Amino acid sequence: MSRYGQMFGPDITFLGVERCDLDDPAGYADADVVILGAPFDGGTSHRPGARFGPNAIRQTCYLPHDGSRPSLALRVDALKDLRVLDAGDVETYAGDIEGSLRAIEDAVARIAASGAIPVVLGGDHTIALPDATGVARHHGFGRISMVHFDAHADTGDIEFGHLHGHGQPMRRLIESGAVRGDRFLQIGLRGYWPGPEILDWMAGQRMRSYEMTEIVTRGLDECLAEAYAIALDDCDGVYLSVDVDVCDPGHAPGTGTPEPGGLSARQLLDAVRRTCYELPVVGLEIVEVAPPYDHADITAYLGNRVVLEALSAIARRRRDAADGTRWDPAQPLLDGR
Amino acid sequence: MSRYGQMFGPDITFLGVERCDLDDPAGYADADVVILGAPFDGGTSHRPGARFGPNAIRQTCYLPHDGSRPSLALRVDALKDLRVLDAGDVETYAGDIEGSLRAIEDAVARIAASGAIPVVLGGDHTIALPDATGVARHHGFGRISMVHFDAHADTGDIEFGHLHGHGQPMRRLIESGAVRGDRFLQIGLRGYWPGPEILDWMAGQRMRSYEMTEIVTRGLDECLAEAYAIALDDCDGVYLSVDVDVCDPGHAPGTGTPEPGGLSARQLLDAVRRTCYELPVVGLEIVEVAPPYDHADITAYLGNRVVLEALSAIARRRRDAADGTRWDPAQPLLDGR
Amino acid sequence: MSRYGQMFGPDITFLGVERCDLDDPAGYADADVVILGAPFDGGTSHRPGARFGPNAIRQTCYLPHDGSRPSLALRVDALKDLRVLDAGDVETYAGDIEGSLRAIEDAVARIAASGAIPVVLGGDHTIALPDATGVARHHGFGRISMVHFDAHADTGDIEFGHLHGHGQPMRRLIESGAVRGDRFLQIGLRGYWPGPEILDWMAGQRMRSYEMTEIVTRGLDECLAEAYAIALDDCDGVYLSVDVDVCDPGHAPGTGTPEPGGLSARQLLDAVRRTCYELPVVGLEIVEVAPPYDHADITAYLGNRVVLEALSAIARRRRDAADGTRWDPAQPLLDGR
Amino acid sequence: MSRYGQMFGPDITFLGVERCDLDDPAGYADADVVILGAPFDGGTSHRPGARFGPNAIRQTCYLPHDGSRPSLALRVDALKDLRVLDAGDVETYAGDIEGSLRAIEDAVARIAASGAIPVVLGGDHTIALPDATGVARHHGFGRISMVHFDAHADTGDIEFGHLHGHGQPMRRLIESGAVRGDRFLQIGLRGYWPGPEILDWMAGQRMRSYEMTEIVTRGLDECLAEAYAIALDDCDGVYLSVDVDVCDPGHAPGTGTPEPGGLSARQLLDAVRRTCYELPVVGLEIVEVAPPYDHADITAYLGNRVVLEALSAIARRRRDAADGTRWDPAQPLLDGR
Amino acid sequence: MSRYGQMFGPDITFLGVERCDLDDPAGYADADVVILGAPFDGGTSHRPGARFGPNAIRQTCYLPHDGSRPSLALRVDALKDLRVLDAGDVETYAGDIEGSLRAIEDAVARIAASGAIPVVLGGDHTIALPDATGVARHHGFGRISMVHFDAHADTGDIEFGHLHGHGQPMRRLIESGAVRGDRFLQIGLRGYWPGPEILDWMAGQRMRSYEMTEIVTRGLDECLAEAYAIALDDCDGVYLSVDVDVCDPGHAPGTGTPEPGGLSARQLLDAVRRTCYELPVVGLEIVEVAPPYDHADITAYLGNRVVLEALSAIARRRRDAADGTRWDPAQPLLDGR
Amino acid sequence: MSRYGQMFGPDITFLGVERCDLDDPAGYADADVVILGAPFDGGTSHRPGARFGPNAIRQTCYLPHDGSRPSLALRVDALKDLRVLDAGDVETYAGDIEGSLRAIEDAVARIAASGAIPVVLGGDHTIALPDATGVARHHGFGRISMVHFDAHADTGDIEFGHLHGHGQPMRRLIESGAVRGDRFLQIGLRGYWPGPEILDWMAGQRMRSYEMTEIVTRGLDECLAEAYAIALDDCDGVYLSVDVDVCDPGHAPGTGTPEPGGLSARQLLDAVRRTCYELPVVGLEIVEVAPPYDHADITAYLGNRVVLEALSAIARRRRDAADGTRWDPAQPLLDGR
Repeated sequence: MSRYGQMFGPDITFLGVERCDLDDPAGYADADVVILGAPFDGGTSHRPGARFGPNAIRQTCYLPHDGSRPSLALRVDALKDLRVLDAGDVETYAGDIEGSLRAIEDAVARIAASGAIPVVLGGDHTIALPDATGVARHHGFGRISMVHFDAHADTGDIEFGHLHGHGQPMRRLIESGAVRGDRFLQIGLRGYWPGPEILDWMAGQRMRSYEMTEIVTRGLDECLAEAYAIALDDCDGVYLSVDVDVCDPGHAPGTGTPEPGGLSARQLLDAVRRTCYELPVVGLEIVEVAPPYDHADITAYLGNRVVLEALSAIARRRRDAADGTRWDPAQPLLDGR
Repeated sequence: MSRYGQMFGPDITFLGVERCDLDDPAGYADADVVILGAPFDGGTSHRPGARFGPNAIRQTCYLPHDGSRPSLALRVDALKDLRVLDAGDVETYAGDIEGSLRAIEDAVARIAASGAIPVVLGGDHTIALPDATGVARHHGFGRISMVHFDAHADTGDIEFGHLHGHGQPMRRLIESGAVRGDRFLQIGLRGYWPGPEILDWMAGQRMRSYEMTEIVTRGLDECLAEAYAIALDDCDGVYLSVDVDVCDPGHAPGTGTPEPGGLSARQLLDAVRRTCYELPVVGLEIVEVAPPYDHADITAYLGNRVVLEALSAIARRRRDAADGTRWDPAQPLLDGR
Repeated sequence: MSRYGQMFGPDITFLGVERCDLDDPAGYADADVVILGAPFDGGTSHRPGARFGPNAIRQTCYLPHDGSRPSLALRVDALKDLRVLDAGDVETYAGDIEGSLRAIEDAVARIAASGAIPVVLGGDHTIALPDATGVARHHGFGRISMVHFDAHADTGDIEFGHLHGHGQPMRRLIESGAVRGDRFLQIGLRGYWPGPEILDWMAGQRMRSYEMTEIVTRGLDECLAEAYAIALDDCDGVYLSVDVDVCDPGHAPGTGTPEPGGLSARQLLDAVRRTCYELPVVGLEIVEVAPPYDHADITAYLGNRVVLEALSAIARRRRDAADGTRWDPAQPLLDGR
Repeated sequence: MSRYGQMFGPDITFLGVERCDLDDPAGYADADVVILGAPFDGGTSHRPGARFGPNAIRQTCYLPHDGSRPSLALRVDALKDLRVLDAGDVETYAGDIEGSLRAIEDAVARIAASGAIPVVLGGDHTIALPDATGVARHHGFGRISMVHFDAHADTGDIEFGHLHGHGQPMRRLIESGAVRGDRFLQIGLRGYWPGPEILDWMAGQRMRSYEMTEIVTRGLDECLAEAYAIALDDCDGVYLSVDVDVCDPGHAPGTGTPEPGGLSARQLLDAVRRTCYELPVVGLEIVEVAPPYDHADITAYLGNRVVLEALSAIARRRRDAADGTRWDPAQPLLDGR
Repeated sequence: MSRYGQMFGPDITFLGVERCDLDDPAGYADADVVILGAPFDGGTSHRPGARFGPNAIRQTCYLPHDGSRPSLALRVDALKDLRVLDAGDVETYAGDIEGSLRAIEDAVARIAASGAIPVVLGGDHTIALPDATGVARHHGFGRISMVHFDAHADTGDIEFGHLHGHGQPMRRLIESGAVRGDRFLQIGLRGYWPGPEILDWMAGQRMRSYEMTEIVTRGLDECLAEAYAIALDDCDGVYLSVDVDVCDPGHAPGTGTPEPGGLSARQLLDAVRRTCYELPVVGLEIVEVAPPYDHADITAYLGNRVVLEALSAIARRRRDAADGTRWDPAQPLLDGR
Repeated sequence: MSRYGQMFGPDITFLGVERCDLDDPAGYADADVVILGAPFDGGTSHRPGARFGPNAIRQTCYLPHDGSRPSLALRVDALKDLRVLDAGDVETYAGDIEGSLRAIEDAVARIAASGAIPVVLGGDHTIALPDATGVARHHGFGRISMVHFDAHADTGDIEFGHLHGHGQPMRRLIESGAVRGDRFLQIGLRGYWPGPEILDWMAGQRMRSYEMTEIVTRGLDECLAEAYAIALDDCDGVYLSVDVDVCDPGHAPGTGTPEPGGLSARQLLDAVRRTCYELPVVGLEIVEVAPPYDHADITAYLGNRVVLEALSAIARRRRDAADGTRWDPAQPLLDGR
């Protein structure tokens, strides 16, 4: 599986973790997590640039790129406590959406088949289709719930004359049966898209979508608790899809379709942590980090921290499961030392 | 009424709505809302650039410019449910503040006289004087309450040797009787201006100004409720003035006089929505969006969404008034479909 | 021919010229020039964003958008002396390169068939293939010479696994016979691409490529004169392709693949002017203006001026042909008035 | 004490307050506050630029630079109610960390010895060591509590082979005895540094560090109240150290080591105010404002406002102490006028 | 003469030279040069921001702000060899063009009357009218030639309904008789403004305008020599007006109306030097530096260097006149030492 | 030799060339060129950020990072025709200038001792001292000529109280005898530093410094020819030092001390090529690329191309020496294929 990722910068791994080669399954047979770049932005309806997302998310950190990140909050070092490998970037090409999606799905499916959790660095949100499908091919169509942070529902039908694009992956996933509509939990929607026809379709699928007004009125914590209960009902795993535009443009300017009025970065990090700590996450993606529109790299930093927060929570969940303990968010930092 | 707006970019309408010509009253006789650009920044005390505000607010959106924006939260499509027209830009010239204010007041007055709600895209805050005066000429001097979101009181007397400028419009409005001092509700003030003399004058006018400390201490919701009660007391309509610098510079960097510690974009959108849903708004303005200091267009996006939020709430208010129903902010997005 | 261009901003015309609809041939039957946007950047190998090129090139000007631009240097007002219409943007989609190229070629061919000169605003350089092919369909395969300003030869074979992309259009044009290899004049090449194999292919096609070293050593004027002689030999028209990256990144930072050491903006404008004045240009394109990487809009300004310079020279060429006069570049501005 | 500060811009004072010369103690004998620039960024581990912090913090304000700033919230004009002088910048040199720290410590000690409160404008956080030591030399080693707002604990041991740098000052202060470990209150920590070994050391020193998770879970107000009680226990004064990166990168992008998920600017301003109103602050610093990474000057604005908020609260504390009154944050702005 | 300049930043002088007060003529009675800021941008037709020009030009330099700048090329230290004072900023207000122009003219006239050379830092080009008029009031109407570097002729009649603005000062100067039309030398014009009517008026005034095409064809040196001969014919002094947009946008992006295809910074500096060395310059201005559109401060640096180059050449001219020597541009730097 | 370079980004090599370890001499025994990063900016007098130079220069390229760069102009593939290795970054620390210089000198000396040409990526210009000294330790003190492209002479004595810094390396080199003063060729000097005293010292050392005025007057080609003759006289090798600020800020904005009026990027590339083709270069450095002040990466691109141009010319020089041929800059690109 040759790589085009180097087209978009040097061939590096996420914060210096060890690399693996998807063509050599032995190399990642015992991995807990395999990171994969999907530098595809040919499905963006507006501002492009997410092709540079994988590179930016991998390297935007002021700490040494040494494959270690001890979480203050969760008291784990996910990059060490878990076996985390980076498989590099999938070969994609903006001008060929079908071919790109096939290549991504195949790569994700290989990772999932190995038993590792694929962590996909986008790229635009088009890749949710191959990402979640690749996971579902291993865990079973309809057996995975989706927790989806986003300003947009991404349930469009045909856009720009095409079935595929960053506004449609969630519909395609439901249509194919990869994910059940009634196990789709959307958090952070807002703004002026989609219109009634698509919303009707979504209702018909029994999706559960939390628009920001409901979130502000009821509180994010309560909404998440409710969503998690649905996600856990009759499912074998959870796929977590994080579109960075779920955050307010003030916290995530470097993205393609910014929608004012979103979550703060703090809220997103806490929600990602909680999702990965409380639910059996079997795959995840962070998408729509678009460096050309970023400044002072703040969106790339956020993307990097979303990955670390997720991995740390997964590591802590596993440790607590083994120990029979439970993480206490109110515990002072230096307590217990 | 020839236009100079094209000086500051192409001749476009707000998100593609139909255009009208203020010199042809028949063309907007049945309008619910008429949008007007006031590309004037000759009254700015510090960073200029708000002249490009109307152009930026009109076109900064990642969705098609097709004259339709269905609100997820409010379940209306304001640009279609209301008849919204765009009259283009008033002829103004930074170097001639008096002439510019006259032209703006006249344009706003024509719109108000037609029965439509003028929605003015600034421009710096100097334009609040002609905007609110133009509305008061129709609804009656002293008959309109003012709800004013801003970091600054804008009640200066003489600045730079002049009566007019972006720090003084509110004083001029009270002095002329266009708006009663005791029907002036200011939300979001903070920082180090104005000094005691001006504050004493404001107190003498019985203005009600909510500084951020009070807002944080009591809660924005409670402050708004209190303010609305005052606004509704013995008035025939409400004028809504939104200075984008009421938001924190992190959420609205593209403005002339940024003051740290403001509202989040989410808070502003919710407050604008609530104002337009609960009060009889007869005119509104969004001012001080200064594109030269914006990045990734996030302030322009916010300005665009403030307009849409206001229009959507007005549309919903009218529909609910007709239906006898009431909007429920806790209703899940897909409920009732 | 519905348009998606509004996806990337408001629906405007080049500096306010009249619009036409490609589906209504009568509307542009008498046009001298038809401007067409091709907001396609799905073929970019590196920094995307050229999809916003048509919008930026159309509106980046500090003068009124009034459909008039009297050239100081050439003493014509091209937008008035010629009948210049704007047909808007072709429907393209980054994710579908084949479909996009077909749509562009068809649109250009319609314009060429009408007798007008198509002026295509890119978009990435992939569009040179449909642009020049569309023109050749009218003027005859092999009957048009190509004058090509660029840092890159764009003669790659397969890139990213595809025949089409912004590094290959020139090869495809020669292979199809649309343009003869020995009527291909390339000016401004430099840097480290392509490698020997492709250069051998180019030599085999008898292309004439002026690398910057030759240009600096011999002088741009002499190189152009030599190139023009080749272009005029046994041809019925000339297609002018201007990739803005032919200029030094200091003069054109807003582009996808900047290569240091290029022409100055002054040199490019003079060369474009001379090309359009001395040669029978029957079509032209300006590509690779990528606004996300621009600052202070200087690359967009340059793109706008390349179009105006070309149109002014065409207008002057026609006038001089009619008058039997010849333009004198040394004539003082106010002489003859 | 000659100055190099002019190397980094013109020789100005904070918002136009009077200047003093540290070599002339009579000139600041009666000062309440002396501002000092420490334009040193040789201890930064990542993005440099804080050397321009003093200049930016001093001049970034849209109001006249007239040495007056009446606080709306606190009803004092700190720059007038207190005698505030600006001593300019200490001579520092990025390449010589030891020499720079000596010079800063000496300058701060002189100010503290005069009885004035030193307000140090950084510079990177390395300067906390000389700043707090200089204060402790006057007030007594171990007699000053530290309230420390930061994303990072800054308790590293050896970094880059050195004892000094922006990640280590707090350890050095405890080791020297200048500040007791159990009087160290850290607020806003988060992310992935330091690791267990350093955390163990911190615990051993009985530091109290509030990580963001605890802050979010318990509430910032409650955490501050608890911290203040510790700070007041058996101490003669409080040193306040504000690293602007305690704020979220969305609110403070212009800094060297941004860590997503921090406080909002509003939270920081309120916390600084409360610290200076409720505690006997005898010295303070604002550090890590790095203009090269700022945009629209929003981080510089925040730095300027942190200083003003602190000074205003100190002024109000003194007035209330004299009056026997107490500030009411819920009091409406115009009440009592 | 109170100052508003501090509104736009701290109260500083050009690179640290001594200050003077225009209300105290004794203070500048023996000055050779008095620098004056005119932070007015109310006459800008497009991008504003030149109000911050004086502040930026004064302080943008990486060398110590110590009132000394020894020129490598000219072997003088203009800030020391000449007595150069800075009178601060004139009170202006964007919204009041007439009042602002009066204030500027009066200030310049005072300086000229003292026998010093006024060096005015703009501001937009509107100020050329009061600047040159103020000089002419001392040296005599019609007795001063104008050497004018600009992309634009600035000879408009009525723009935006007004006589005054940054596109008209040169016409007003000729109409008033302050400067003779046939002693007007314009260098660097290009682009698409003004139209034939204005050009005819210019020709009628016998202005001599060098468009870039003539400059490229004949060479800048030859054009300057020709222009200088005209300027020296029957005149008592020369006024030098430098609009930074005479440079290519690549070299001067921070300006209001950038026009591609201009001079390089090197060419401008050499031309300014030569003008001030060869001609009896009695006043000069540098205008249209607009910091909001600058990046990395490169336009502000250029503005600062234009002033230094002019002052250095004036100093050298005076020294050579005294010595009877002549500067040799080909002399190696270290020769003669 | 452990590395801190990863502190400033991921651990990558120049465009993907093979890496080597300076502690393992066998690994680079047969290298022609060894690239070394010196991410030190503790000696910068003004804008810092050059610490990120090595990382930026290594990775800023739109072509695949595949260790191959066939030069169009020179017809060699330097990264393949030569054995080019990358040894990573030297451990440096901004706060410790002496220690950093020692580490750099030692690393360069090791490379030189191996027979390879060291190519040092700065970092600020302070590193010229250890770079050239390290080379001289191998080739002999006084046996190497220096060709130095720069806006500044860098011959200061004591700055900021120190002997070392980016304004002094050239003096230190002459004082130590590493490089003879009369074999110092400086090209591109300009502006207002240093003053007479330092210039006198330079003259006393018989340095040859080409200020831009001489270069413009005589022509760069002639000046270079003259300089080369001096450089070749009684020397065993040439050290090439390129400070990117020799270019005009329009072409190289991302630098610490920009000085308007410099070379174009084209001129610099041609001069670097010619230097490396005509002279026996035994070491070289590219310094002062400061990414925080860059935009659209244009300065980083230029830095990358300076390295490639130098290496390509070295490769061609060797090939021509072996072949007895000579490169012809006027040869058309496709000739001889």
